[in-house]
Amino acid sequence: MKFCTSCGSTVGLQVPEGDDRQRFVCTVCAEIHYINPRVIVGCLPVHEGRILLCKRAIEPRRGYWTLPAGFMENGETTLQGAARETWEEARARATDMELYRVFDVPHISQVYMFYRCGLAEGAYGVGPESTETELYREDEIPWDEIAFPVVRETLREYFADAASGHFPVRVSAIEPRQRL
Amino acid sequence: MKFCTSCGSTVGLQVPEGDDRQRFVCTVCAEIHYINPRVIVGCLPVHEGRILLCKRAIEPRRGYWTLPAGFMENGETTLQGAARETWEEARARATDMELYRVFDVPHISQVYMFYRCGLAEGAYGVGPESTETELYREDEIPWDEIAFPVVRETLREYFADAASGHFPVRVSAIEPRQRL
Ligand SMILES: [Zn+2]
Ligand SMILES: [Zn+2]
Repeated sequence: MKFCTSCGSTVGLQVPEGDDRQRFVCTVCAEIHYINPRVIVGCLPVHEGRILLCKRAIEPRRGYWTLPAGFMENGETTLQGAARETWEEARARATDMELYRVFDVPHISQVYMFYRCGLAEGAYGVGPESTETELYREDEIPWDEIAFPVVRETLREYFADAASGHFPVRVSAIEPRQRL
Repeated sequence: MKFCTSCGSTVGLQVPEGDDRQRFVCTVCAEIHYINPRVIVGCLPVHEGRILLCKRAIEPRRGYWTLPAGFMENGETTLQGAARETWEEARARATDMELYRVFDVPHISQVYMFYRCGLAEGAYGVGPESTETELYREDEIPWDEIAFPVVRETLREYFADAASGHFPVRVSAIEPRQRL
């Protein structure tokens, strides 16, 4: 950040009074500009024991498979955001959504929230950010072509949990370059 | 937002190519500026069946009681942020943290995440954003002086769950002016 969003003057890093860390503060209007982590919301759509994956049409990780997910928008809930992404990427309507997996990715200041869900009428298609979508059984998952560690880990945990019929909400952090 | 953070020129609202909603786009350098929801992380600290509350020293809701919570910072996990707020507001060290309650507050684009936790050595004090902190039994909670609906609801649910010994993770949305 170089310029103030309110007045267009330059900003500088300083610790505001009463704060304990550096913020971007406007050198003219004194506005403090906070930069906060971003939330990525997505779904783990399950239909008859199979998982809906999307082959990415865009970078990063173009050509690799992912769960439908994307940045949460202002004015929506995490649940609405996850359902919206599932529609946008896979033309599928999420049903019976339950929070399932939270990942912190502190080195890039992101929080992932995945909801388990069903698919209305088992229907899905291909949205503009995907080149292909498909329902996969566990033994059909293209494990070597999964786009992101958070997706691989969520899939692994889902199949383990499905075997026990118990789906606890888990939270953990992903470190830089961690291979899951 | 009126000015571009990268070049200081004016921004205007437009729908970028491939997007489906209006964004602030710089009229000179064309950078797209996304504005995203913010995450508030906090703790529900429990010690010998009592809950640690903090009386707010600052606005909003100065003089009302709250759970320790605040905006998540870049570079930390939700768990680290919740523990940090508990230290800052109540000089208490959170132990055995477990995600407990997620609230979406879409009309102000916020997501709350509360962790249940213990208190190291049962110790607590008063941080700079509090005038008082105290451990309360259920029948001692100052229900009419609770700062925020999300705090009141989390406390209510906690005592109901404690009676059953089962603490499921819950997600729900708070609507404008909803009284819980
Ligand atoms: Zn300014
Ligand atoms: Zn610009």
